[in-house]
Amino acid sequence: MIHNLQLNSAGKLKHFLDIEGLNHSILTDILDTAESFISVTDRSIKKVPILRGKTVANLFFEASTRTRSTFELAAQRLSADILSLDINTSATVKGESLLDTLHNLQAMQIDMFVIRHQDSGSAHFFAQHVLPGVSVLNAGDGQHAHPTQAMLDMFTIRNYKQQFENLSVAIVGDIMHSRVARSQIHALNILNTGQVRVVGPPTLIPEQAESLGVQVYHDLNEGIRDVDVVIMLRLQKERMRGALLPSEEEYFAQYGLTAKRLQQAKPDAIVMHPGPANRGIEIESSVMDGSQSVILNQVTFGIAVRMAVMSMIAVQPVADA
Amino acid sequence: MIHNLQLNSAGKLKHFLDIEGLNHSILTDILDTAESFISVTDRSIKKVPILRGKTVANLFFEASTRTRSTFELAAQRLSADILSLDINTSATVKGESLLDTLHNLQAMQIDMFVIRHQDSGSAHFFAQHVLPGVSVLNAGDGQHAHPTQAMLDMFTIRNYKQQFENLSVAIVGDIMHSRVARSQIHALNILNTGQVRVVGPPTLIPEQAESLGVQVYHDLNEGIRDVDVVIMLRLQKERMRGALLPSEEEYFAQYGLTAKRLQQAKPDAIVMHPGPANRGIEIESSVMDGSQSVILNQVTFGIAVRMAVMSMIAVQPVADA
Amino acid sequence: MIHNLQLNSAGKLKHFLDIEGLNHSILTDILDTAESFISVTDRSIKKVPILRGKTVANLFFEASTRTRSTFELAAQRLSADILSLDINTSATVKGESLLDTLHNLQAMQIDMFVIRHQDSGSAHFFAQHVLPGVSVLNAGDGQHAHPTQAMLDMFTIRNYKQQFENLSVAIVGDIMHSRVARSQIHALNILNTGQVRVVGPPTLIPEQAESLGVQVYHDLNEGIRDVDVVIMLRLQKERMRGALLPSEEEYFAQYGLTAKRLQQAKPDAIVMHPGPANRGIEIESSVMDGSQSVILNQVTFGIAVRMAVMSMIAVQPVADA
Repeated sequence: MIHNLQLNSAGKLKHFLDIEGLNHSILTDILDTAESFISVTDRSIKKVPILRGKTVANLFFEASTRTRSTFELAAQRLSADILSLDINTSATVKGESLLDTLHNLQAMQIDMFVIRHQDSGSAHFFAQHVLPGVSVLNAGDGQHAHPTQAMLDMFTIRNYKQQFENLSVAIVGDIMHSRVARSQIHALNILNTGQVRVVGPPTLIPEQAESLGVQVYHDLNEGIRDVDVVIMLRLQKERMRGALLPSEEEYFAQYGLTAKRLQQAKPDAIVMHPGPANRGIEIESSVMDGSQSVILNQVTFGIAVRMAVMSMIAVQPVADA
Repeated sequence: MIHNLQLNSAGKLKHFLDIEGLNHSILTDILDTAESFISVTDRSIKKVPILRGKTVANLFFEASTRTRSTFELAAQRLSADILSLDINTSATVKGESLLDTLHNLQAMQIDMFVIRHQDSGSAHFFAQHVLPGVSVLNAGDGQHAHPTQAMLDMFTIRNYKQQFENLSVAIVGDIMHSRVARSQIHALNILNTGQVRVVGPPTLIPEQAESLGVQVYHDLNEGIRDVDVVIMLRLQKERMRGALLPSEEEYFAQYGLTAKRLQQAKPDAIVMHPGPANRGIEIESSVMDGSQSVILNQVTFGIAVRMAVMSMIAVQPVADA
Repeated sequence: MIHNLQLNSAGKLKHFLDIEGLNHSILTDILDTAESFISVTDRSIKKVPILRGKTVANLFFEASTRTRSTFELAAQRLSADILSLDINTSATVKGESLLDTLHNLQAMQIDMFVIRHQDSGSAHFFAQHVLPGVSVLNAGDGQHAHPTQAMLDMFTIRNYKQQFENLSVAIVGDIMHSRVARSQIHALNILNTGQVRVVGPPTLIPEQAESLGVQVYHDLNEGIRDVDVVIMLRLQKERMRGALLPSEEEYFAQYGLTAKRLQQAKPDAIVMHPGPANRGIEIESSVMDGSQSVILNQVTFGIAVRMAVMSMIAVQPVADA
């Protein structure tokens, strides 16, 4: 099975490609390990020697500030050496294939690849072709998965709500094209979340959504009624050009999270967003900056979660990897 | 008062945004601290652990080699972790506002922001919005200020002339649009420089220049007569397109510093330039490379001065910040 | 003599600009030192403190993944501080000359410059103008030289064949325009290689090739008959546009290394390529990925060789430099 690719023979993390195929125990391990790194990043000297003398290569084929920066900071705070490749100015312009790029980088004794790529499956492709002892972390592949984002979201939820079993969580927006939503849904279900809802226009919800273990809503007021957590997704404005969506104004009118609408959720509901947010399109500024928003905390937790995943992978015995 | 933003309640540096509003004692502290770092950067192992485990983010919205590189080297030599953001390829292309960018980076537990931005006031804007304990260093904001450049210029002057009180200093060129000139004038006056002159065509000198505590000259020979220090400014060639300036040739004929003209200054006068210089426009090559030029020494001193400012800010007790 | 520029008065390496002008003893020293670094890069913590507190500036005026990344990793694994300059966004856009750029960087107390530049002679130019105690490493200058590439190729050959004296080595492709070929030919001859052959169409072989100490072949089957080492060069597709070459298909038909043709070489011959390779133009995929290919090993050895050169230069007493 393809997802076992992420685990070694002892069932420990070897790569981190996808939430699908991982179990409750591993996800909880990641959250617990991240918890221990919160104290590292909070203190005055934010550095531990776990990856000292290891090399992490950041390969970003798509632009990113948040994910790229937090991966880089996570690696720095673990004392790794870092090779950041600007893919546009690199050898790929000379026509080298992705596999040749991988093989060449691997020959540089990279210990860990962090890869973001516009094609679904690219991180798996890398993981299938690296040598034993080399690990791949998926920083977002096409519309497929964004597992560290999902885990920082789980960390955020657990931080504010302590558990998942009694929670109701709504994910709002373009579920269809979102690697973030896909990974969140898997993680929430593996962690036995009470109820997982997806909310959006019919054109942006996959037809077989219910088979993923979620309840589908097309009305925002209903969709977030009495939930504990509201996760807003970024609306890719590119969708507007196609036939999938009405105008931005109409989208906001129907699916934008306003302070008034948020009252449908529980009074202590938290509001999350993976960023970067479009103020006034999927979320009202007053909500984004309001007291229920934990959006910036997600960013902070993201560093600890990425440190956790990197360190869990790094401590696997090489022989076994 | 807005400039107190840079100081904590004990009157110590918290941010470094502008020379205006600082006093003689702080400027002298910076120069003395930089002096102590000269020995660090001169020795074989150019590294001290003052910023170990701290993260410095370099945000350059405008191209720069000199300032960006020396800030980066200063941070490295203080053992900081460094996040350098290429703003063109980052999330701002997705339409995120400057404030959202700041908030997101701050959530990554950045300890110090170094920011260069084309808008006057952007560094102050950052400083107004960061959390307590986070510092902002202005690496040049629009036409407003470039305080580390001014301080490395002061360091250079003190290095060669020992004091300021008996000196006559001329700043030559486009005073009107120069953040460097503005910061230099403030610094020279705070350090009680005997006489500060500005020299340039009427179109490039602000009307109220004298209120800044300078003497205005429109003739270069007169303007540099018997001065101890000549500071040439870079001529932004963009100005040529407007009505502010005649041709490059005519500018050089009237305001270019030639070896012959330099004889008007004191025989031991030093020649400075913040770089990059336009040879043959504001300065003749023979002067730039001549024995009175200390232009490259300015660059070297710039690292020590930036190390000084960073370390003075870093040692403030967090509680107070 | 210009090449003595690379050596100090004791005959030790001061810069590394060109293979020409170096002797057997120095090349062997580099190979032996690189050998000792293989163990560093193979072990779990790939770091030694040889360049701690030193600053290496990487100046790449031409795009490169392989060479740039391996120089950067080599410097990191020697614990250097690294300044990587993106030349397109730097002050050169403001019209600063190469010499001014050098002088300014040097004023930042850079210990070692790694420079790749499209102009032949640029590394020598840098070396002629740096201060005593500062070193220059040529990472490829125009069509002139690429000495670290040649040395990693020599390391690869020695690794698989133990010696050079009894070997026959063929270099295949565009000899005329290749800085790699030029440096390889010098190195092979200095190391007393039994026979050095160059193979390619008459338009891509310099007229006076034989004076370089090589045998010229225009037929690939003949050229690689019974050789121990086949080095394929990258075909610059730009050449196609000129009159120098027929189509890609015709080039492959005549000079592409296929599995069938490789049978002309000795059964244990190794196949090398500096990368990035054009599969299906100068080399068939099955050969590139085949059992005789050591192309990826070249990349790995490249880090050790670059560490060797950097460390040999760094340990020269400053007084002597």
